[in-house]
Amino acid sequence: MEQQQQGEINIALIHHPVLGRNNETIGSAVTNLDIHDIARTAKTYGIHNYYIVTPYNDQQQLVGEIIDHWQNGHGSTYNPARREAFELVRMAGSLEEVVESIRQRRGQDPALVTTSAFDQEKTLSYSNSRKRMATGESTLLIFGTAHGLASEVVAKADYTLPAIIGRTGYNHLSVRAAVAIICDRLFGESIDQEE
Amino acid sequence: MEQQQQGEINIALIHHPVLGRNNETIGSAVTNLDIHDIARTAKTYGIHNYYIVTPYNDQQQLVGEIIDHWQNGHGSTYNPARREAFELVRMAGSLEEVVESIRQRRGQDPALVTTSAFDQEKTLSYSNSRKRMATGESTLLIFGTAHGLASEVVAKADYTLPAIIGRTGYNHLSVRAAVAIICDRLFGESIDQEE
Repeated sequence: MEQQQQGEINIALIHHPVLGRNNETIGSAVTNLDIHDIARTAKTYGIHNYYIVTPYNDQQQLVGEIIDHWQNGHGSTYNPARREAFELVRMAGSLEEVVESIRQRRGQDPALVTTSAFDQEKTLSYSNSRKRMATGESTLLIFGTAHGLASEVVAKADYTLPAIIGRTGYNHLSVRAAVAIICDRLFGESIDQEE
Repeated sequence: MEQQQQGEINIALIHHPVLGRNNETIGSAVTNLDIHDIARTAKTYGIHNYYIVTPYNDQQQLVGEIIDHWQNGHGSTYNPARREAFELVRMAGSLEEVVESIRQRRGQDPALVTTSAFDQEKTLSYSNSRKRMATGESTLLIFGTAHGLASEVVAKADYTLPAIIGRTGYNHLSVRAAVAIICDRLFGESIDQEE
């Protein structure tokens, strides 16, 4: 019910432009389990669309075949729960293409929200991000593969979510884990309300 | 600093006995990314040891080779951050073996805490679980692969964590995502304290 009062929440997983080991701009290969795990997390938390973003034709073909297998092929009948998650999965060649598709569907641009393992400018806390999304603003949550989003992507952000700190200063979560934690912080039931 | 006042928090990922598609008891194969992702999450949240539990010799050999590659082999110099995470990874043939190893190290059994995608008996809320762990009790968080922990494992639990609900009733998170979310709920900074 809460969903209907809210804007559309989407996720984009960027494979180019992202950072390499030495902070150079690279393109990364799509990881099969990134598609599966993040689709399952997205479905759990009521995300509307999950975009796999890669400009490479061969990668797009691979992703297209994986999506088709689970949306329409043998996977869809073998594992109907996985099919449900894959219904959210879309493909795009660039972040601009994602924004354009949302603009065409919704009539306006989504707020662009980047994520990072490091502190960035324009940071909005998780609780304030929850409040902002609750106003009905459509939002695109942007995650990077490899060593994170290139600075040109971060520069486009309307705001950034705080880095996940944990307890040890170790900041090398997998993107699959980071998406799960961030979705739970933004869309999960508050654990402090339970008893 | 908080760590030193606390008991030892460990994670066990069970590959046998777990549930299959039709709720029959099976043994599952080890997934490489379960080792990596959960080790990285464990390292982030200050978990002390992460046990991969499988009774199968061929699987133990595979896991041993993967651990060795990242603790001592080429992986350890290629990616030192991954080596740090792999320092937490242990192998065990059964849940009993995990408990025995903790007992020998700590002089007492840990509290056994199971996790499930479904509600179970003996459920303790996340906030109360946080409080209980803060008393200094050593804890073993037990996660199942495949379709979840077999009932004989759940029956041994001192308590169970609530299922992760999300917003849609879809309860098919990957175990990698579930571990990340649960560690964040138990050991992450409270997002309601930030501003």
